[in-house]
Amino acid sequence: MTGRRVRLGPGAEFDLIRGFLADEGELGPEIRVGPGDDAAVLEGGWVVTTDLSVEDVHFRRDWITDAEIGYRAGAAAISDLAAMAATPVAVLVSVACPRAGGVDLVAVHAGLRRIAATVGADVIGGDTSRSPGPLFIDVTALGRAQRPILRDGAEPGDDVWVTGTLGASAAAVNTWLAGGTPPEALRSAYATPIPRVDEALCLVDREVVEAMIDLSDGLAGDLGHVAAASGVRIVIEAGRVPLAPAAEEAFGPEAALELALGGGEDYELAFVTDPGVVDPEYFDRRHGVRLTRVGRVEEGEGVWLEGEDGAIRPAGGGFDHWREGAD
Amino acid sequence: MTGRRVRLGPGAEFDLIRGFLADEGELGPEIRVGPGDDAAVLEGGWVVTTDLSVEDVHFRRDWITDAEIGYRAGAAAISDLAAMAATPVAVLVSVACPRAGGVDLVAVHAGLRRIAATVGADVIGGDTSRSPGPLFIDVTALGRAQRPILRDGAEPGDDVWVTGTLGASAAAVNTWLAGGTPPEALRSAYATPIPRVDEALCLVDREVVEAMIDLSDGLAGDLGHVAAASGVRIVIEAGRVPLAPAAEEAFGPEAALELALGGGEDYELAFVTDPGVVDPEYFDRRHGVRLTRVGRVEEGEGVWLEGEDGAIRPAGGGFDHWREGAD
Repeated sequence: MTGRRVRLGPGAEFDLIRGFLADEGELGPEIRVGPGDDAAVLEGGWVVTTDLSVEDVHFRRDWITDAEIGYRAGAAAISDLAAMAATPVAVLVSVACPRAGGVDLVAVHAGLRRIAATVGADVIGGDTSRSPGPLFIDVTALGRAQRPILRDGAEPGDDVWVTGTLGASAAAVNTWLAGGTPPEALRSAYATPIPRVDEALCLVDREVVEAMIDLSDGLAGDLGHVAAASGVRIVIEAGRVPLAPAAEEAFGPEAALELALGGGEDYELAFVTDPGVVDPEYFDRRHGVRLTRVGRVEEGEGVWLEGEDGAIRPAGGGFDHWREGAD
Repeated sequence: MTGRRVRLGPGAEFDLIRGFLADEGELGPEIRVGPGDDAAVLEGGWVVTTDLSVEDVHFRRDWITDAEIGYRAGAAAISDLAAMAATPVAVLVSVACPRAGGVDLVAVHAGLRRIAATVGADVIGGDTSRSPGPLFIDVTALGRAQRPILRDGAEPGDDVWVTGTLGASAAAVNTWLAGGTPPEALRSAYATPIPRVDEALCLVDREVVEAMIDLSDGLAGDLGHVAAASGVRIVIEAGRVPLAPAAEEAFGPEAALELALGGGEDYELAFVTDPGVVDPEYFDRRHGVRLTRVGRVEEGEGVWLEGEDGAIRPAGGGFDHWREGAD
C-alpha cells in the first residue's frame, strides 16, 4: 500500500482536482495514500485532510450562529477522518474574517474547539487574516488510523450500508432558500452535525468494512466516488434509503429522497461489506445509531437507482458546491 | 518535550490567537509541540503548519501571475517548515476561487506544485470551492524533523543571525502601492521567494542553532516572538542588518532598514546561537547564501534597535496583515 492514488467520481470540482493531480509523478516514500480519497495517509498511520467553508457558498451568516459556523467547518473536516476510520488527534484552522459585519471570531473559534474537543482533538495551530470579502474557514484535521479504510475496496456481491438518516441538512438549506425557517430537527442536522468517529472505529474493529466514505455530496455523488475508485457499479435501492423523518415531513417522500441522494452534507457514513456480516441491532444498542442496507455492489460502473417497481436509472451526480452551491 | 505551548510576541493577530488558545487544557499525548511556534510537532517527528493567502490582503492579482500566487502561498507555508528545521514531505491546498475575473486555477495549482517539487514535497490533497469574493488560498505543509528547532531556546549572551538580505519583498509592495513597477530583484523577492529549507537543515546538522524563526512579519516582529518565547531581550544592531541592495537603491538606507525591520515576507531565517560558533564563509561556499550576525540576546524583554551611535530604542511591532495589510 505505497503511494496509492484513488480514482474520483463525476463532478465539476472533481474534474478540476483531477486536472491538478494529473501530471504528478510517483509519490514520496512517506506517503501511504495520496490524493483522491477522503484523506491522505502518511507514514506512522497519520491521516490528514482539509476542508473549506466559505460564507454564501457553504453557509450564510443569517442561517446559523458564528459558533455553529466554526463547529460545522470543523465537523466537515473531522468527518473525513471518520471516513478513513481514523482517530482524530489535532486540527488547524485558517480564518479570513471580514472587518465589517460583526463576525465574532472568538465564537467561530469556540465552535471549532467544541467539535474538536468532542472527538478528543486539540487545536494545534492555524492562521488568521482579514478578508476583503466573505468569511472563509479552512480546517485541516489530523488523525491516526491503524488500518485506514479507503474507497476502493468494494467488490461485486457486497452490500452497501449507511449510518443514520439522510436529507435533513439539505432540507434545512432548501427551507432557508425558500424564505422559511427550518424546524429544529432539520436546522441542527445542518448546523451541528456529529461526525461518525466512534461508529467508524467500531465498524473497523469488527473488520467488516471493505470501503467507506462520508456523505458530504449526497448519497449518489459520494457512492459515485466509491464506484469509480473500486471499478464497480453500485445500485441504490430507493425504497431502502433511510430518509430523515423531518425532511420527509417537510418536503414529502419523493423530494426527501432527492435531498438524500443529491443534497449533501449529512456527514453520515456509507460503507461496503461482505453480505450478511453487519448486525444493525448490536450497533443500535451500542451507538444509538441506525444502520441501513441501502444497496448492493455489482459489476459495471456508476451509481444507479432501483425504484420500488424494479426499474433502474442513473442516480445522478450529487451536490457540487462549485457548480450549484447555495447562493 | 511533551505538549509545549509557545509564548507569542506583540501584534493584533497574535492577540486574537492568544485569545483562541487561552482556555485550552493539556495537549494530547501525540502532540509534541502545540500552538504558538512556526509549526506544531506530532508524534513521529511530523511537523505541520498552515498559511493563508488572501487576494487584496497578501497579494493583488495585478501584481503577480496566477502561477506566482500559488507558488508564493506554498512558499509561505514551506518556510514555516524550514523554520522548524523540518524536511518538507507533503502539502494540501484549499482554494476558493472567484467565478468572474478569469483566475486560472490550474496555473495557481501549477505554481504551488512547482515550489512543492522544488523542496521535494508532494501535493496530497486539498479542497476547492468557488468564492463570492476574493481568491483565497490556504496551504497546509507537512514535514519531518528529527530535532525540531523552536523559538524558545535563546539565552542571554547568544548571537542572533539572519540568512540572505532583507527588505526586498516589502520594497516591491511599497513600489506597487505607490503606483510604480518594481525592478526584477524586488519583484522576484516578493513573487517567488525560496524557503530556506536546505540552509535550515545544514544549520541544524551542525547543531549550532538554539532558536529559529522564519521572517514573515519583519525582523523586529519575528524576533519579538523569539524574545517572548525565550523570555529574553533581543538587541538588533542597526548597522549590521543586511539590507537588500535593490531595496536600498529604491528607497535609501533608512527606509530600507524600516522595510527590513517591519516590512515582512522576506522568508529568510533568523536564528540564535552560542557566540562564535557560526562559520559564514563555509555557509556561503556551500549554499551561496550570506549569513549575517545582526544582534545579540540579553536579559530582559522585547526587541530593541541599537543605532550606530549606540542609542537603543524599541524596534517596533512589525508587519501585521490583520491591522495593516496592503489594501
